[in-house]
Amino acid sequence: MKSNNHSQQNFRRDGFLGLTGRKVSLSDHYEKKLEDLEDNVRMKQNLLAGEEVPAAFVSFKSRLGAAVALHIQQGVNPTEWVTEQAPEPRDVHWAFFSASFIKRWIFKLVVPVACFALIVLYLIPVVIVQGLANLEQLETWFPFLKGILSLTVVSQVITGYLPSLILQLFMFFVPPIMLTFSAIQGYISRSQIERSACSKMLWFIIWNVFFANVLSGSALYEVNVFLEPKNIPRVLAEAVPGQASFFISYVVTSGWTKLSSELFRLIPLVCSFWKRLFSRKDGNEFEVPSLPYYNDIPTILFFGLLGITYFFLAPLILPFLLVYFCLGYIIFRNQLLNVYAPKYETNGKFWPIVHNSTVFSLILMHIIAFGIFGLKKLPLASTLLIPLPVLTLIFNAYCQNRFLPLFKAYPTECLVKQDRKEQNEAGMTEFYDKLVTAYQDPALMPVQYARNTDRDTSPLLHSTEV
Amino acid sequence: MKSNNHSQQNFRRDGFLGLTGRKVSLSDHYEKKLEDLEDNVRMKQNLLAGEEVPAAFVSFKSRLGAAVALHIQQGVNPTEWVTEQAPEPRDVHWAFFSASFIKRWIFKLVVPVACFALIVLYLIPVVIVQGLANLEQLETWFPFLKGILSLTVVSQVITGYLPSLILQLFMFFVPPIMLTFSAIQGYISRSQIERSACSKMLWFIIWNVFFANVLSGSALYEVNVFLEPKNIPRVLAEAVPGQASFFISYVVTSGWTKLSSELFRLIPLVCSFWKRLFSRKDGNEFEVPSLPYYNDIPTILFFGLLGITYFFLAPLILPFLLVYFCLGYIIFRNQLLNVYAPKYETNGKFWPIVHNSTVFSLILMHIIAFGIFGLKKLPLASTLLIPLPVLTLIFNAYCQNRFLPLFKAYPTECLVKQDRKEQNEAGMTEFYDKLVTAYQDPALMPVQYARNTDRDTSPLLHSTEV
Repeated sequence: MKSNNHSQQNFRRDGFLGLTGRKVSLSDHYEKKLEDLEDNVRMKQNLLAGEEVPAAFVSFKSRLGAAVALHIQQGVNPTEWVTEQAPEPRDVHWAFFSASFIKRWIFKLVVPVACFALIVLYLIPVVIVQGLANLEQLETWFPFLKGILSLTVVSQVITGYLPSLILQLFMFFVPPIMLTFSAIQGYISRSQIERSACSKMLWFIIWNVFFANVLSGSALYEVNVFLEPKNIPRVLAEAVPGQASFFISYVVTSGWTKLSSELFRLIPLVCSFWKRLFSRKDGNEFEVPSLPYYNDIPTILFFGLLGITYFFLAPLILPFLLVYFCLGYIIFRNQLLNVYAPKYETNGKFWPIVHNSTVFSLILMHIIAFGIFGLKKLPLASTLLIPLPVLTLIFNAYCQNRFLPLFKAYPTECLVKQDRKEQNEAGMTEFYDKLVTAYQDPALMPVQYARNTDRDTSPLLHSTEV
Repeated sequence: MKSNNHSQQNFRRDGFLGLTGRKVSLSDHYEKKLEDLEDNVRMKQNLLAGEEVPAAFVSFKSRLGAAVALHIQQGVNPTEWVTEQAPEPRDVHWAFFSASFIKRWIFKLVVPVACFALIVLYLIPVVIVQGLANLEQLETWFPFLKGILSLTVVSQVITGYLPSLILQLFMFFVPPIMLTFSAIQGYISRSQIERSACSKMLWFIIWNVFFANVLSGSALYEVNVFLEPKNIPRVLAEAVPGQASFFISYVVTSGWTKLSSELFRLIPLVCSFWKRLFSRKDGNEFEVPSLPYYNDIPTILFFGLLGITYFFLAPLILPFLLVYFCLGYIIFRNQLLNVYAPKYETNGKFWPIVHNSTVFSLILMHIIAFGIFGLKKLPLASTLLIPLPVLTLIFNAYCQNRFLPLFKAYPTECLVKQDRKEQNEAGMTEFYDKLVTAYQDPALMPVQYARNTDRDTSPLLHSTEV
């Protein structure tokens, strides 16, 4: 049936190409063009539907059976049959669904390198742009501004705020870039992509906000410090206390502000208003947003890191952080209950990121304390400090042994229990029936642009007589 | 039946304790003592046999079933039910068989730290001992040697060979120490222990022979170099070429000598002769030795590392290495075919160590070359070199994806094929019968010291009338 349809469409398209020579009304012209596009899409879909794809969703009678297929290497060549747990239907990222192992592997290698380069070298272009955007340069570029720029107030505002504005603007583009990086890294589900983007953002913030401000030198100086691990405690101990007041004000200016902007959601409001103004869709269509975990979790974790690393250097930071976290609890609780609708179940899988970030913060705090006790020539304090990172790392290793496996896969005990429970349940056959159609590539969804049911006769646009 | 036996032995033991007060002949005394020991052993065995042990061998009807139990986490608490593949019966290391997860985990954490300390700080005591063992010190300790030591020949020999002799003596103790470290690391099979000891020995040799000679400073200087990763290429480039002639002679003195001593097996011969002289066992009892992989593989790999790192600095090393490897092939082929009997199947599982060592050698070579081109101010050559380590690491990652899984577990394809083949085989019931008694803790083996079959009446030593 499909191939039949296909030839018919081909014919119609030829007919259309002949028609373009004639002079037709504008509406007719676009109508035909749209129709043509739609046909093309359908033709491509038919081709796709017939194509053999080297990937498939496989459903199992029991959870245990699925787990067996998932956890044991299938073929002799481990790259030939790769099994992964299927995400929820709404969570599938189709772009890499049928990608070959080699393609996914190459992207998995290339993206971290690109991401590393972005994180480490990010400040270089920012600093260059900031350097370019000074008063004299602006005057050369926009001579008509000369009059305004010579006013003292204006020039003060520009020299004071322009660099920070540029930094904020650049910052604004990072989360989408990280999400794109993660999206092309070969994951087959959106939740994996967001988790991966979340770690990337976390490292980005730690490097480009914490270390960039603490070491307050060029990006290359930062890198240099970390290439001499012996000096890290000393350098950090010298640099970190000086930035205490900066980070206290950062908690207020960035943390509190972000929370309140989260509450008011001004940018999404403007965007939505803008869209509705121009799209002319029915006013009631409104997609419920989902929480951008990859953007919010790293921010919150970063404030945790600030608290842990600064509490013994500048305890004044603690009340500000307390206010931040209390406000955050109230606001995010409200947002999660009343504003956002989750696009997929996270299953608590973001927790290991939180755990790792906390352990990293603790170790960083120990290193800074070690350096400070060294600077202040308190060898006893330094010595007494040594067990702390060791114990932290042992605790981390214990957690990885005891709890991390539960984030990766369900144990047999749970699987078998659930399997037995479901054996006697009534709705299982219905569930299996649903399963067959649950996973559908959106590229193969029926085209829904326009055309009435009797699509070959009625025009595309209903009553627009030009 | 077991508990019955137990009480009877308890009673006899009490009786013996009463007897010791009496004056008995020496032979009687020792006879009783041995008997007592034997009873104690048997009593302990009974206790052990009745004791519940938190570990068990579980046999499965099919290989796939075993793989399922092995690869999927069983209980909700991942540390409660830990599954591991059972080694061959002759390969089991019983000491840690029933150790708890926490105990094994602690040892797994502690041993690498101890091993790291041994590897890094090993040269410190050696240098101290070498410093103590100079001529004056020897004269103070052994005044009677004064006459001999004042001879020029003797003093020259001592100053020339004593330090190297001490180093060699210390070196002699390292493989057993590494094996002991691995043995208490919580492995349940000898093959795992030997594999682990093999890696440990490899790192030990690379650090204490290659880097110690190349950097030719104190151990702390060595550590210092690696704490400043930025300087590694420069330091290595300065130091490595100078040691070329030393390593060429090392290939001859150590490599060729070890091979020939391997052929003659002088030390085992002396040991065996010694043992037979004193143990008065039947002369025909002779245990076929097994190849000490943990000692031989690292040595061979180290010569590979020398070849890879020195071939472009001092190509003269290559013919010597060629002779070493050709000799080695002939000698080890002979030894494996005619001398050694394997104690367990290695299943080629030592190969990943060889692979990793080769990749490490290549990267080290690239770093040295990079440093040398830097020293000679050839920026083009340095730049052209950058893709090499990258490609090596990508190759390594590819191998880890493509081949490493096969060293860890059998794929379903093979398991199912083998299962189906065995379903129709005749000897399977026999095999299952054998399986029941295959794994027996040697601690529970029947005591075989002496005593005739009617052990309660006849004396322990047959006809020794004093």
